[in-house]
Amino acid sequence: MPRINAARLIADLRSLARFGQAGTGVDRTAFSPQDKEARHWLRGRMAEAGLEAQIDRIGNVIGRFPDVRRAVVIGSHTDTVPKGGWLDGAYGVICGLEIARSLLERGGGPGLGVDVASFQDEEGTFLPFLGSRSFCRDLSDTELAAIKSKDGVPLAAALDAAAYGSTPVRHDPARHTAYLEAHIEQGPRLEAERRRIGIVSGIVGIRRLRIVAKGQADHAGTTPMAMRKDAGAALLRLAARIMTEFPAKAGVETVWNIGRIEFRPGAANVVPAEAEMMLEIRDTAVAKLDELEACVAGWIADGAREGLVSIASEPIARITPTAMSPEIGGLIAAAAREHHAEPLAMPSGAGHDAMVLGRFMPAAMLFVPSIGGRSHDVVEDTSEADLALGCEVLAATVEKLAALRG
Amino acid sequence: MPRINAARLIADLRSLARFGQAGTGVDRTAFSPQDKEARHWLRGRMAEAGLEAQIDRIGNVIGRFPDVRRAVVIGSHTDTVPKGGWLDGAYGVICGLEIARSLLERGGGPGLGVDVASFQDEEGTFLPFLGSRSFCRDLSDTELAAIKSKDGVPLAAALDAAAYGSTPVRHDPARHTAYLEAHIEQGPRLEAERRRIGIVSGIVGIRRLRIVAKGQADHAGTTPMAMRKDAGAALLRLAARIMTEFPAKAGVETVWNIGRIEFRPGAANVVPAEAEMMLEIRDTAVAKLDELEACVAGWIADGAREGLVSIASEPIARITPTAMSPEIGGLIAAAAREHHAEPLAMPSGAGHDAMVLGRFMPAAMLFVPSIGGRSHDVVEDTSEADLALGCEVLAATVEKLAALRG
Repeated sequence: MPRINAARLIADLRSLARFGQAGTGVDRTAFSPQDKEARHWLRGRMAEAGLEAQIDRIGNVIGRFPDVRRAVVIGSHTDTVPKGGWLDGAYGVICGLEIARSLLERGGGPGLGVDVASFQDEEGTFLPFLGSRSFCRDLSDTELAAIKSKDGVPLAAALDAAAYGSTPVRHDPARHTAYLEAHIEQGPRLEAERRRIGIVSGIVGIRRLRIVAKGQADHAGTTPMAMRKDAGAALLRLAARIMTEFPAKAGVETVWNIGRIEFRPGAANVVPAEAEMMLEIRDTAVAKLDELEACVAGWIADGAREGLVSIASEPIARITPTAMSPEIGGLIAAAAREHHAEPLAMPSGAGHDAMVLGRFMPAAMLFVPSIGGRSHDVVEDTSEADLALGCEVLAATVEKLAALRG
Repeated sequence: MPRINAARLIADLRSLARFGQAGTGVDRTAFSPQDKEARHWLRGRMAEAGLEAQIDRIGNVIGRFPDVRRAVVIGSHTDTVPKGGWLDGAYGVICGLEIARSLLERGGGPGLGVDVASFQDEEGTFLPFLGSRSFCRDLSDTELAAIKSKDGVPLAAALDAAAYGSTPVRHDPARHTAYLEAHIEQGPRLEAERRRIGIVSGIVGIRRLRIVAKGQADHAGTTPMAMRKDAGAALLRLAARIMTEFPAKAGVETVWNIGRIEFRPGAANVVPAEAEMMLEIRDTAVAKLDELEACVAGWIADGAREGLVSIASEPIARITPTAMSPEIGGLIAAAAREHHAEPLAMPSGAGHDAMVLGRFMPAAMLFVPSIGGRSHDVVEDTSEADLALGCEVLAATVEKLAALRG
């Protein structure tokens, strides 16, 4: 006996995808007209389901489960990247709506309600995780007042124009026992390992380093190899060392990337005077991030000791990993197995609202497969069967959580 | 008893440097007004010296030594790169003028005259080595008709506007027994080894390869290392192999350079879909260039065999090395030693007019030190003593050559 109405879940996802439809995908950046329309539509669907629904000051759409003292929060976001997919964020929100709605249809929760949330601007048109940070009181008024979009529009102006609710809704520690988020994987692992449910062990932390070598521009024909101060070669040696030594030093789930490299002046016949690259390392363990960053610092010092070229690194971003609740993860796993789906434990390599919520309450995430591993693109997709299974498993998880905490 | 007038040599160099003076350097690109003025000035100085002087159809300034049946050609070019130095090219031309003038003052050559040449546009505003290629009949009328400047101006229009001589002067195999070119080193070797005279063993050939790897763009957080098609990593592995293995495979004088590298899309959090680099290899031996290019091709094939990423290389430039005459090199060495200067045999890593002339007659080049190894820049300089010594040694070489061939 299914706990949710799968057809209704899919229908709501398809309805939501019409706001900002762009071919097979969706273009619905935060505060765009189509994003605002989608929020009003969502508030309406929440109200129809029997939730106490509102759009708060920051634009979070919150559906409060009636007549309960305790509730899990289930949600994600309905804004997208430009020319994004129809499921990223939307899936987690509509899962929450469908689970709350199904519970209400059956006469309310067993002592534990489901509050549904679509958090504002997860994708960062103004600020990544704006809505979840507001919900968790993780933004001071001073910080809020300084926020501008990439185009220079002050957030305050965008909020005044949107004219959402007069006050922000905050998380309520007495009420909110946990946060659950269903999301598409946005990677290829579930598909490759033929699993239908992923359980997120933690959300990775990120160390992003800009590494710059400085030497001297020389004529590449007339300057003997031994007399060069080749910034490019110094950086390539460092890159080679990272690629050679990281695999043995990294954890099983560590990922890293050299995504950008540039030599200056950048002419075939000029020895590079300056070379720059961007290195990113992600892992769920701070100790591992520390260890790998220290390795890089040591290799940079080795390179600098040769004395011909100076090398320095500068941190561009440092994001702390967020642990997910092993207890709730265990409940999701049990629920998945009851549905004949052996789950895969895996880190989330990308950021999610659960990264913010997880610092304030026990949080857990469930992944469903991304076809071809694709996301942040109009081709993003997941089979309807997987979308339904993910929601069903999450609903079963809520039931198990209610038995423990209701 | 010196063979040349060193003060006059320096004075003429300083006079020439006033045409297009740019701080301590010179901006005198081919066909610029200051370049044209300099050519007319030079023709006048040649005539004053007693040479039969003309500016030919292409703009070459040629001073023909009177009353001899055989002559060496001594020259170089008086055009410069934008914001270049005062000696690059100019030194070789004024050396020729001074040697011819001194010979004429002493009553003519001992059976072997000195024809002086300033070849048009060595630096390639329209076409590198335009003047020396015209002189050597190395350009067909069809090729000439197609030449345009970087700004799209047809060469024919520039020549009509300049209104130089009506016919081109060509080299005369019955008359011209050899080509001599004095030049600043444009590199740091003579200074580093405390030598005042370099003898060019050959002008390097160049292989310039554009190497492109193509993989797939993926999210650098959600895509496990083993599932990536990382074009950047493939290219970095190839670069590392070049840097590791080239030193053992290269000849003593081989130089190579990775002057440009670029990843696309070039974002910190995106696995590179495409990566491109420019590799340049220079050597005086074709066999060595062939061997190293074959190594790179083999390593590219190794990389492609892994199957995740395609790699291909495309030749951007292939310039054949030019041998210099060992016989004349020996005469320069003897002349240098007579002047208490132990010469250094070295390849020329940059191209010179001697590269063209050397395909049509025995050619030799003499280098004088570049302070700090700098050239193609306003800071380019050489001590007056070295400039005088270089010219004196070249004059003595002409005398030795006259004894053999006059």
